[in-house]
Amino acid sequence: MIKVGIVGGTGYTGVELLRILATHPDAQLTAITSRKEDGLPVADMYPSLRGRVQIAFSSPDKANLAQCDVVFFATPHGVAMAQAQELLAAGVKVIDLAADFRMKDVTQFEKWYGIPHTCKDVLSEAVYGLPELNRDAIRSARVIGNPGCYPTTMQLGFAPLLRAKVIDAGSLIADCKSGVSGAGRKAEIGILFSETSDSFKAYGVSGHRHTPETIEQLQQMTDQPVGLLFTPHLVPMIRGMHSTLYARLTADVGNEQLQALFEQAYRNEPFVDVMPFGSHPETRSTRGSNMLRIALHRPNNGHTVIVLVVQDNLVKGASGQAVQCMNLMFGLPETTGLMHVPVLP
Amino acid sequence: MIKVGIVGGTGYTGVELLRILATHPDAQLTAITSRKEDGLPVADMYPSLRGRVQIAFSSPDKANLAQCDVVFFATPHGVAMAQAQELLAAGVKVIDLAADFRMKDVTQFEKWYGIPHTCKDVLSEAVYGLPELNRDAIRSARVIGNPGCYPTTMQLGFAPLLRAKVIDAGSLIADCKSGVSGAGRKAEIGILFSETSDSFKAYGVSGHRHTPETIEQLQQMTDQPVGLLFTPHLVPMIRGMHSTLYARLTADVGNEQLQALFEQAYRNEPFVDVMPFGSHPETRSTRGSNMLRIALHRPNNGHTVIVLVVQDNLVKGASGQAVQCMNLMFGLPETTGLMHVPVLP
Amino acid sequence: MIKVGIVGGTGYTGVELLRILATHPDAQLTAITSRKEDGLPVADMYPSLRGRVQIAFSSPDKANLAQCDVVFFATPHGVAMAQAQELLAAGVKVIDLAADFRMKDVTQFEKWYGIPHTCKDVLSEAVYGLPELNRDAIRSARVIGNPGCYPTTMQLGFAPLLRAKVIDAGSLIADCKSGVSGAGRKAEIGILFSETSDSFKAYGVSGHRHTPETIEQLQQMTDQPVGLLFTPHLVPMIRGMHSTLYARLTADVGNEQLQALFEQAYRNEPFVDVMPFGSHPETRSTRGSNMLRIALHRPNNGHTVIVLVVQDNLVKGASGQAVQCMNLMFGLPETTGLMHVPVLP
Amino acid sequence: MIKVGIVGGTGYTGVELLRILATHPDAQLTAITSRKEDGLPVADMYPSLRGRVQIAFSSPDKANLAQCDVVFFATPHGVAMAQAQELLAAGVKVIDLAADFRMKDVTQFEKWYGIPHTCKDVLSEAVYGLPELNRDAIRSARVIGNPGCYPTTMQLGFAPLLRAKVIDAGSLIADCKSGVSGAGRKAEIGILFSETSDSFKAYGVSGHRHTPETIEQLQQMTDQPVGLLFTPHLVPMIRGMHSTLYARLTADVGNEQLQALFEQAYRNEPFVDVMPFGSHPETRSTRGSNMLRIALHRPNNGHTVIVLVVQDNLVKGASGQAVQCMNLMFGLPETTGLMHVPVLP
Repeated sequence: MIKVGIVGGTGYTGVELLRILATHPDAQLTAITSRKEDGLPVADMYPSLRGRVQIAFSSPDKANLAQCDVVFFATPHGVAMAQAQELLAAGVKVIDLAADFRMKDVTQFEKWYGIPHTCKDVLSEAVYGLPELNRDAIRSARVIGNPGCYPTTMQLGFAPLLRAKVIDAGSLIADCKSGVSGAGRKAEIGILFSETSDSFKAYGVSGHRHTPETIEQLQQMTDQPVGLLFTPHLVPMIRGMHSTLYARLTADVGNEQLQALFEQAYRNEPFVDVMPFGSHPETRSTRGSNMLRIALHRPNNGHTVIVLVVQDNLVKGASGQAVQCMNLMFGLPETTGLMHVPVLP
Repeated sequence: MIKVGIVGGTGYTGVELLRILATHPDAQLTAITSRKEDGLPVADMYPSLRGRVQIAFSSPDKANLAQCDVVFFATPHGVAMAQAQELLAAGVKVIDLAADFRMKDVTQFEKWYGIPHTCKDVLSEAVYGLPELNRDAIRSARVIGNPGCYPTTMQLGFAPLLRAKVIDAGSLIADCKSGVSGAGRKAEIGILFSETSDSFKAYGVSGHRHTPETIEQLQQMTDQPVGLLFTPHLVPMIRGMHSTLYARLTADVGNEQLQALFEQAYRNEPFVDVMPFGSHPETRSTRGSNMLRIALHRPNNGHTVIVLVVQDNLVKGASGQAVQCMNLMFGLPETTGLMHVPVLP
Repeated sequence: MIKVGIVGGTGYTGVELLRILATHPDAQLTAITSRKEDGLPVADMYPSLRGRVQIAFSSPDKANLAQCDVVFFATPHGVAMAQAQELLAAGVKVIDLAADFRMKDVTQFEKWYGIPHTCKDVLSEAVYGLPELNRDAIRSARVIGNPGCYPTTMQLGFAPLLRAKVIDAGSLIADCKSGVSGAGRKAEIGILFSETSDSFKAYGVSGHRHTPETIEQLQQMTDQPVGLLFTPHLVPMIRGMHSTLYARLTADVGNEQLQALFEQAYRNEPFVDVMPFGSHPETRSTRGSNMLRIALHRPNNGHTVIVLVVQDNLVKGASGQAVQCMNLMFGLPETTGLMHVPVLP
Repeated sequence: MIKVGIVGGTGYTGVELLRILATHPDAQLTAITSRKEDGLPVADMYPSLRGRVQIAFSSPDKANLAQCDVVFFATPHGVAMAQAQELLAAGVKVIDLAADFRMKDVTQFEKWYGIPHTCKDVLSEAVYGLPELNRDAIRSARVIGNPGCYPTTMQLGFAPLLRAKVIDAGSLIADCKSGVSGAGRKAEIGILFSETSDSFKAYGVSGHRHTPETIEQLQQMTDQPVGLLFTPHLVPMIRGMHSTLYARLTADVGNEQLQALFEQAYRNEPFVDVMPFGSHPETRSTRGSNMLRIALHRPNNGHTVIVLVVQDNLVKGASGQAVQCMNLMFGLPETTGLMHVPVLP
């Protein structure tokens, strides 16, 4: 049994970790911290967990996280970097769902997140937790920077094309759409029901934090300089993410070859589903599961390939991916506890 | 391994059976019929099942249902009664998710469903599949009439009060609200997104099929004549059912006694959660799970007790309950394959 | 031209007043206050008003409200009572959309709203602003307590029955459902999209502020003591309110007589639509308009009459009703500026 | 008074025409046809119109459309072309909301719509009904092909850039998102609430009918060959359309120049709102109104300009635009009857 701690379990990635871990056969929830909710049974805050999660929140100073085998940080940016070193020293592995350990480029981090990086030692050994692209490093990692939700879709969607050198890396476009849960569980007017329901908008079009993270990773797949336009949008749905990726073909490849690139890249992946060429994946086909689905299009057999990618932003885009990393780090089968069938309708 | 057949697997209760059975450790999906979709892999119709359900639809004449151990009918009313006898004769157990075997009163059935009942022999041995109220009979049943979604909430909400003889059985009111999936997967204008989203309405206020079914069952809990006003409403959400039940107290009982009636009635029930007195259960706290939650209120300590009941109409209200019955019929632990944690948010 | 001021225009009743007044032919928006948004053009906060509302917010101390003919308070409870006296002294009429001037019973007010009532003089002359029941008094009023959204539906739904003495006034039940905008535009987690979408719940079942307000008004329609159970629910839609009212018949009346009671009561009302007996009004049939629709049912011709009432909670339930009062107070045709056709779909 | 006829008034563009015309001061609804609903009062089908629209549907053979001054076709493709000639001969003007008179290129029409064009004479005189680009021709037109919803946003979004010759016309990308009402009021499973709510998907990515229509129009703005990738998506909202347009800059222009191009192009337009550079328009800011809003972005001051365009697909994207054309054709002020303030929230 892996003893698991969660720091900051009151947000959506926190409760999603709890949902997944509640039925994980090899994990035991040992501690969950919340400064504000000290003493409150987790199931009182989230009645969906009544009878399934017995533990109560405890304040960070009381929770003995050092006794855990692994600690997940489901916190705002900046929290994990303050505590990681001490946990690692105590032999505890760390998986951060925020951005503290995602980017090696500290300058970019500090520019986009507006705080100094105070834990560069740990950052230097941190591993980017995208198993499909980084599996071996994750297996032996002590600390994981769990990818952002948007970056997961962009990387898995562009990777086979970049690696095969068939597209122009300098003019990538990612028009992405996310459910509202991606904005977190915060008391903000902009994400009220009456503000977001029955409406649609773009946000952060002139610049978004997930751009530098994605570029840093994409750049490792090609020796061309990567240029990426990333346009996020807010969809009136709770969960789900849909990325529409545009890439200009620079090589003379047929549609079957394109499809084969993806099928070969992901043929052994339990959580990446390459659908038939020309499919239109729906976000709901991944709801509540760790599956990510991809489909290719090439209008008029022209010079642009369109890659459609869908996932549940809270599972493959966050907490499911984190548990996938945990499984790898502890030598478990990668799919352990992650075989939820999507809830549809 | 229980060999399972499904007749009519293209609707919402059908796909929900598939979702549940796909991870049920003791069930093997053997045949699924659809006249229209003969030959189509199930996962082509429901991409959420890609990689999880390998079977294809087959037309009813080709599917060898007689080789199954149990056949679920996820069909419109009237289908199960035409095929049940032959299956039973072949030693196959039958669970009908429609109304054919729910009501013993054939006159009522024929009045409300508008078709003659052609299978009274089977009806006479059929068992009403509400495990919390009927567990022993289900264990030894060959044929189950699976309860309607609304009736499940009304029965489990009124039962402790009726059995304790503390309310006026003659003036029950059930103001019930259902998600749109309860209307099924039918090409009808009235359940289009643009007709039902961002709106709310009552329907069938002057009379609904679930009234006689519920009264027949409630009447077995009391020797007073049962009078029930049942008012269904349509909520712009996919899954979820919320029943607000009003009963007039006729005995001098305190709130703690009322609460104790429910806690005792359901204390060993894995799928009924009695919440603290005065709670407000949300339908989403049951989404995707077989759990039903109940909470009691008594405004101003007056003469009326209000019982709030929530469930996922497709799980405890339909397919999950059917699998719960199957587990009982085959001597499995009742919770086998049904321990999904609700998906929240 | 009526010079109009709005105190607290940043909430939903405020922006709805702006939407209505922007096309009102006899009203001129003169001042709108917001402490936080001083100097911000209204249309910068609400782009829907770009090009239609030119005015900017000003801080309360700068806004010269005394120059207005009427001031609407679209504020939390307690604000209007602090400013009404001074405005009245300056000859300005006051319409409060909060509760300060709704209830004559100060004890009840203080119990339910948790603040002392500091303006009893004004309260004593205040008129309850429900034109269909109180038209003449509104015409000559200087200060209006605009009804709550739920109370509007309950009063207009029960009034014809109570006045005709055909129901038991002591056992009224109102099972009511509201869109999320009814909770206002506040930074609260409970009304986030991800908390309320795709779910349904009751709230305040053990007691809600709109109960004493409604009882105070209903009591004026009958000499029987009024007993009311009011159960509010939250619907995942932005606008709309549906009240399902249950009343026990005490007189021997036929359905046609019941229908006639309503048709006669409201035959000259421009904003109350009595639909054919047995109809199921949808909230969307009133979206964006000041119309309220009513339909009657009587299941099995039994002892209970069910009254279904729908309205847009922000229009007839709040800002539209307030403008209707303004029209009456200034001698305008009652429908002036209020003839929006509902937006459907 | 303009006598107005509507052919096929039961769909969403039909009821939206009725909503607009019900308060249009210079239009009188004279006839509305529906083969299926002959004799049914319009308000019985759409209770939102109770008290506001008195007319009943009549079957096409009974309706005397020849007495009208103008007839709107809110019908599927192919209907208008069968009746236009006869109406024109009787002196009736024709506005078709379907595709029959949108494209001059008959080959493209027949390829994409799968029916022969049987009315080429009328097509040759038909005018494309986008007032902002085509006002003078509309004024004197006898027959209008009302633009598609998507094409309206793409044309108004790209036009200033193409006309100024500052972008590469050959590599335009339009990533567009529409509410479900765009799919019409048809009994189809794919647009049920339970199929489309809480989910997001692309559709028609490999080819959509609005591409050739848009290219035909865009081509008139430039002498470069136009290349357009158009990717439509379905958003779980009723009304609203958001187009995210990508264009590569080929000239050395600053952001202020770009902004000025749009502000100058639309400075006198009552229904086009150019928002400040870097804004994020929401679809709800146009709900129920004929307004279209545009905002420009240029991430990193790079080579790509992003144009965000929002509108209500049923108003500026369909019925509002048709009435705007009618106003022009009959010499009325263009905004007559179209000054609805958007309904927000």
